[in-house]
Amino acid sequence: MTTLIISSNPNYQDSGLNQFLKTSSQWLGNSIEWLQLDEIYPEAKYTKKQIEQEQSRLQQADKIIFQFPMYWYSAPASLKSYLDQVMTNQFVNIKHSLQNKSLGIVVGIGKNLQSYQAGASENYTISELLRPYQAFALAAQMKYLRPLTINQFSYMNEAEKMKLITSYLNFIDNIIALTFDEKQAWIIKNLKKIYNDDETKKDRLAMIIDQIDLRKAELEELKDNINLIKSQEEN
Amino acid sequence: MTTLIISSNPNYQDSGLNQFLKTSSQWLGNSIEWLQLDEIYPEAKYTKKQIEQEQSRLQQADKIIFQFPMYWYSAPASLKSYLDQVMTNQFVNIKHSLQNKSLGIVVGIGKNLQSYQAGASENYTISELLRPYQAFALAAQMKYLRPLTINQFSYMNEAEKMKLITSYLNFIDNIIALTFDEKQAWIIKNLKKIYNDDETKKDRLAMIIDQIDLRKAELEELKDNINLIKSQEEN
Repeated sequence: MTTLIISSNPNYQDSGLNQFLKTSSQWLGNSIEWLQLDEIYPEAKYTKKQIEQEQSRLQQADKIIFQFPMYWYSAPASLKSYLDQVMTNQFVNIKHSLQNKSLGIVVGIGKNLQSYQAGASENYTISELLRPYQAFALAAQMKYLRPLTINQFSYMNEAEKMKLITSYLNFIDNIIALTFDEKQAWIIKNLKKIYNDDETKKDRLAMIIDQIDLRKAELEELKDNINLIKSQEEN
Repeated sequence: MTTLIISSNPNYQDSGLNQFLKTSSQWLGNSIEWLQLDEIYPEAKYTKKQIEQEQSRLQQADKIIFQFPMYWYSAPASLKSYLDQVMTNQFVNIKHSLQNKSLGIVVGIGKNLQSYQAGASENYTISELLRPYQAFALAAQMKYLRPLTINQFSYMNEAEKMKLITSYLNFIDNIIALTFDEKQAWIIKNLKKIYNDDETKKDRLAMIIDQIDLRKAELEELKDNINLIKSQEEN
């Protein structure tokens, strides 16, 4: 299975979340292709040849991910430019070129997830706000996956980030079938690989591995504390 | 009252609907400002000065209209670029610069309105698909108006187009308080003004005025027929 991650983020260079997800995705190797729209197409104008290239890239993927930070309740303009120009009527509606592929949305939000419900500050759920993408999946005869919502990445501690890696890798690839222990083992294995490969990330990764490998109990306690704080925030 | 119409349409020059609405809006004179995004900002990149200009333009309006053809279940990318760049956090969330203004959506769709409901081909209502704009209005503390949906403009006959003018002018300005007869008189007066001003539109407008002025009964019959055809389509 191959996954095409279409990342839309005008500030991709400064985005900690984007970098974090990109690094995580690389652990899956060649089965993942990462398309940073704002980097490759800074003008957001596609030539006929580029449209054909992008359509070919889409056709080769089994799973397509739209990944972006929420900008005014939808993706930044670069994703819309891509949809408007690459997803032609001929490609999607007539040739049914995306039929039976999966469409996943990975969306970063700056506010607490609980703000996104009726009566709360944002008033609408993430599901409602993402409806245009769901409608697109329906029109394209794609399988629309349950979105992965990442809230307040910048406030996450190491344990939460580890959990995010697992959720993200599950979402973009097929490690979902593994048990929890197998997942941990899989991640540690991959982390160790990077630990050996990449000197610059050495300290940070060693710390993460220590946390998983040796301090599981502490992590559980940390998690309980986070949940406690969260439940207090809710009240 | 002044209304700012922000029209997003990459094919604005070839769009019959866009031209039709622009001409109609001109009848309201100086109270309407028309901003054709794709014409003024073909690169969809806003300089600091342009952002300030656009923010100033927004502040002077009482009513703001986002007007566009539906492209993959939302506005074309040019409106999103405008939102992403002009509607800054500082302007909208901190200064509350749009507070108490109205936000209206005028959206053109190519399919029958009945396709936009649960179980029909599009499966989601226009209201649902426009949720991101409604959420924006909420965040900006604006009054969100009931959207004006224009379906299948290219199939409309003259009578339907006349009805559209009335609906549209009601929507963008305050002629809503007039009675039906006053509205007809108002439109005829304005049509006649243009008829005298603009030689190129002479024949077309004369025909429209004839239809309203002299063939009201026939128009009613036409309307009944349309309704009959519509109700048969529904079954």
